[in-house]
Amino acid sequence: MDAEAGRGGERAEEWADVTPDAARRLLAAAVEAFAERGYHATTTRDIAGRAGMSPAALYIHYRTKEELLYRISGVGHRLALDIIGRARDGAGSAAERLADAVRAFVRWHAEHHTTARVVQYELGALAEEHHAEIVGTRRETDAAVRAIVEDGVAAGEFDVPDVPGTSLALLSLCVDVARWFREDGKRTPEEVGDLYAGLALRMVGHGGGA
Amino acid sequence: MDAEAGRGGERAEEWADVTPDAARRLLAAAVEAFAERGYHATTTRDIAGRAGMSPAALYIHYRTKEELLYRISGVGHRLALDIIGRARDGAGSAAERLADAVRAFVRWHAEHHTTARVVQYELGALAEEHHAEIVGTRRETDAAVRAIVEDGVAAGEFDVPDVPGTSLALLSLCVDVARWFREDGKRTPEEVGDLYAGLALRMVGHGGGA
Repeated sequence: MDAEAGRGGERAEEWADVTPDAARRLLAAAVEAFAERGYHATTTRDIAGRAGMSPAALYIHYRTKEELLYRISGVGHRLALDIIGRARDGAGSAAERLADAVRAFVRWHAEHHTTARVVQYELGALAEEHHAEIVGTRRETDAAVRAIVEDGVAAGEFDVPDVPGTSLALLSLCVDVARWFREDGKRTPEEVGDLYAGLALRMVGHGGGA
Repeated sequence: MDAEAGRGGERAEEWADVTPDAARRLLAAAVEAFAERGYHATTTRDIAGRAGMSPAALYIHYRTKEELLYRISGVGHRLALDIIGRARDGAGSAAERLADAVRAFVRWHAEHHTTARVVQYELGALAEEHHAEIVGTRRETDAAVRAIVEDGVAAGEFDVPDVPGTSLALLSLCVDVARWFREDGKRTPEEVGDLYAGLALRMVGHGGGA
């Protein structure tokens, strides 16, 4: 399998819920274009061309370039909330749930670093009402991490002087994986996830670390 | 002092070593334009306009848009190396030096978050030889953090199973402050620095935390 086919496979998985096929291909093409050139330097013509379609065909599915960014950002942010929410609601101790959350969140940011960068760095280009909606989803994700940390403090598993600040730092550490992760680097997404789960437990003062 | 004057004051401090004045104003204008619109969507005409100059006047100081990005990136990366290098070579225990490094590094990323974002997110737009030079400076900064962590392990102050991975995570945590920090947020740069210094000491297994 060549690199192109490999990227195609990753795209298909990432946007699996988006139908029809043309709408899905356009989202994947938009992510690539935004990541390479930035949102403002990308035209709908560029995106349509990458997807092998005409600009007119693009407008059947998305009215504006901003709608594409909004859809990408929505998918990315809801996925983030799903990952952390699942860990919060899971069985096990707070330490196990925090480690699960960090492992899964890091893995997603490593495996989908191109999408994650667009999602994180182009927020400012969203229209006001879309921005407000995405910020709402981010707040829910923050709250889900905080809930796990608070559970651990209440259970006496964690020792955390500043719960909101430490929760913010935990999420921030995971998100920044999208910036530095390289497929040809020394560590796999799983290895980074394991390392970070251990560091997260140290950050919350969990006795005995990972 | 209005917001515009406030930003002007910050800019002057940030690029204080750049002369003459016109070259300094152009760098500050380029940072603003790259941060707002992205490197690829910015023209040298945009930058000159923001600095109140003609495109022809810009070319007296910078041959290309890429040269502006290279200068900005160089200043930012050398400052990062200075901050961490000073902490590495400072007096005091490894724990004190790590806390100093994190405090100063976080504070810079919070106070200069616009510049830091351009420096971190537009690396891929640098010409090959400039990119290689900047990557070299980044490696020196990584090595300086690693040296402090290794000192702490050797002195028995720290307990770190994975020194390179933990050093990477420490830097990453600090760098990501530039993404989320807001002047109108709840914490000052100093408060974030103090919080992160404590978290960093936990990450390296320093007994007793901050």
